Amino acid sequence: MRGTARQASVALRSVAAIAIALSTVGQVIAAQESAPLRADPHRILAHIEGLSRFGRNAEGGVDRVAYSEADIQGREYVKELMREAGLAVVTDTAGNIIGRREGSDPGLAPILFGSHIDSVPGGGNYDGDVGVMGAIEAAQLLHEAGVVTRHPLEVVVFADEEGGLNGSRAMVGDLTPEALQVVSHSGLTVGEGIRALGGDPESIEEARRPPGAIRAFLELHIEQGGTLGDKSLDIGVVEGIVGISWWEVTIEGMANHAGTTPMAGRKDALVAASHLIIGVSRIALERPGRHVATVGRISADPGAPNVIPGKVVMSLEVRDLDSRTIQELFTAIAAYSGEVANKTGTRMSWRKLATASTPAPTDEGMRDLIEASAKELGLTTLRMPSGAGHDAQDLARITPTGMIFVPSRGGISHSPKEYTSPEDMANGASVLLRTILKIDLQ
Amino acid sequence: MRGTARQASVALRSVAAIAIALSTVGQVIAAQESAPLRADPHRILAHIEGLSRFGRNAEGGVDRVAYSEADIQGREYVKELMREAGLAVVTDTAGNIIGRREGSDPGLAPILFGSHIDSVPGGGNYDGDVGVMGAIEAAQLLHEAGVVTRHPLEVVVFADEEGGLNGSRAMVGDLTPEALQVVSHSGLTVGEGIRALGGDPESIEEARRPPGAIRAFLELHIEQGGTLGDKSLDIGVVEGIVGISWWEVTIEGMANHAGTTPMAGRKDALVAASHLIIGVSRIALERPGRHVATVGRISADPGAPNVIPGKVVMSLEVRDLDSRTIQELFTAIAAYSGEVANKTGTRMSWRKLATASTPAPTDEGMRDLIEASAKELGLTTLRMPSGAGHDAQDLARITPTGMIFVPSRGGISHSPKEYTSPEDMANGASVLLRTILKIDLQ
Repeated sequence: MRGTARQASVALRSVAAIAIALSTVGQVIAAQESAPLRADPHRILAHIEGLSRFGRNAEGGVDRVAYSEADIQGREYVKELMREAGLAVVTDTAGNIIGRREGSDPGLAPILFGSHIDSVPGGGNYDGDVGVMGAIEAAQLLHEAGVVTRHPLEVVVFADEEGGLNGSRAMVGDLTPEALQVVSHSGLTVGEGIRALGGDPESIEEARRPPGAIRAFLELHIEQGGTLGDKSLDIGVVEGIVGISWWEVTIEGMANHAGTTPMAGRKDALVAASHLIIGVSRIALERPGRHVATVGRISADPGAPNVIPGKVVMSLEVRDLDSRTIQELFTAIAAYSGEVANKTGTRMSWRKLATASTPAPTDEGMRDLIEASAKELGLTTLRMPSGAGHDAQDLARITPTGMIFVPSRGGISHSPKEYTSPEDMANGASVLLRTILKIDLQ
Repeated sequence: MRGTARQASVALRSVAAIAIALSTVGQVIAAQESAPLRADPHRILAHIEGLSRFGRNAEGGVDRVAYSEADIQGREYVKELMREAGLAVVTDTAGNIIGRREGSDPGLAPILFGSHIDSVPGGGNYDGDVGVMGAIEAAQLLHEAGVVTRHPLEVVVFADEEGGLNGSRAMVGDLTPEALQVVSHSGLTVGEGIRALGGDPESIEEARRPPGAIRAFLELHIEQGGTLGDKSLDIGVVEGIVGISWWEVTIEGMANHAGTTPMAGRKDALVAASHLIIGVSRIALERPGRHVATVGRISADPGAPNVIPGKVVMSLEVRDLDSRTIQELFTAIAAYSGEVANKTGTRMSWRKLATASTPAPTDEGMRDLIEASAKELGLTTLRMPSGAGHDAQDLARITPTGMIFVPSRGGISHSPKEYTSPEDMANGASVLLRTILKIDLQ
């Protein structure tokens, strides 16, 4: 009786106490009808704080870019937490950390869950980290409760999420030799970085999991937007990761002397660009839906205060869960740009950039299980898209995938100001665990 | 009889032939009633083309920034033309080239006229050059005609006009020790550059001409705008050089994830900036007058396609002949920026930059002489402001100053596409000479 044997080595926790003596999931689920396994907010917070030491910056956030020394040290800390949660830790050839817990049925594929701990430069302590610590908390609770699931469980810490989902791309067989040559924020190439993490870029294909090799993938993550907070809701049931399309538009007017060219005769590319920027915002706002359209980068040439801008180059990004909506928005924006060009005497040319990603819907069955788990725990939910990219969008190509969002205070992410309360983190971990147990019973 | 002695050495030109035997200005003016001295379009064009070799770039323009090797070589070419026109050539301590021709009355202050030959990076062959070649043409015509004026005449090639009117600033005693430390486009500091031209930055005050030391200053220049061309007029009688005020406005919104922040909740600093840019253009267009207002420089932070811009910094330049108009335009623009800030949830803060210049009206008497000269030559005129800065604005502080504009094709300047026809250049030089002779008689 494995559960019973381990039972002596763990501290009894009041919320989990009823479950401790039970050794099968069916019994645990039944017991949970009255007192379900629930994550410990204090323990998750302590783990978040423990991890925050690695790469901490002056603003209280972290510079823990993938493959950096801070990343490597943070990963060692996480591996130790995994071992304390009873997981057998390995690193795959892509540098992904896998903490595995065997199931009772050796013929079943593992249920995979986790996120990442690398940050953007000047990042915060919650993006990715909450999902990893929530996953370890789930494993820890099962460990303490002595529960053996039917399926093997694998907690995953994906390598280099922020640099392009490189760990999950390797896991679905999509990390190209060219991608290994890209220089990351750490200064190392992705290939060199993977080696620094203990992976092996020359055997990258060994990290690949073929379709069917994973029973399901679940990722807990902070929302990174303000919708849950604005509506005072607990849990976001993610409908999918939006597709992202990028364009570059070049606006050509006539550069000329700002002192000698009368106002009426100007072909000012920046004035034309301004009409277009306002148009992008208006077109996106007027159409109902949860799409977004953004001009984030702009340059005006020659860029001197005393010269009328002759050329402006700017970015357009459009995101939505539906590729057709993205295309329709772009069509409307491009048509409006033609009107602006006519009115301002400028020329506008559009170029689609290759960095687009297609929408990645989550699995309908997973959404239902997440929603049911949250409701059984007394939590409020909202079905919503993920506007940001996640490793889940790669995994969705090879296995039924679900994502659980918890609130981000003020909708802030990629900033030292990121914050999610311990209670919200624990709610997410509790929903994650309950969903895992439901999948295990299917 | 100097005129007769020189007569043999110059080619007879039909338009000047009647004047050649005359040795005093009074006689020349009288003779010109029937056949005035007129500049030779072919000779001016040949000199423009001769100068264009120094610093020529692939686009057919010039990179002849002040103090560069091209500038130094071009100046040698100009000095040679001056000597051929009978001028005694010296370089003052600021690097200004002075080609002097003595007058008949040693007690009189010199009449100064000229422009510059340095260019902006990627400049054209007419800005400045036309004024220098027109001045040399005027001297050449007098030389060939054997005319001795009462006043000494000085043709000037100002050093480093494009880098901040540095030669003329030294001439009016306004080139500071700090300005000598500024690094110019040539890579040399202004002080090092002046030395490279044969000047002496440590004796810069010797270049200063006190008020009264110059009888008058005249500058022939291309319009750099399209007004004369649009109206098919020959000569612009410049009313003054506009004042220029610069501001920097910082627009602070909220940077956030472009994927996770709904359209309706955004505080996009670039959208706010776009409203303001359009407002600047509209406010300037709606007010009658010849003022201009320009946003030429913009930067958006963080400047990534997938991040909503949180901060925009941009320039505002306003120019007019009247300081009050400049202030009233700024007041209207700043008030509008407050409305935009309220509407977009952003903050806008304005900072006035110290680089402003005050309006520099030309001398009313000089305007009348230029206009009369042009009309006597059968040329059409327009009184107009100069939207661009010129050395004349410095000289206007110490001597009665006039400026003569000739058309710029398409209003283009600071570009290899600059063009002024040989006929227009010759018209300007003829008006310049006739105005000099009128001043000489006063």
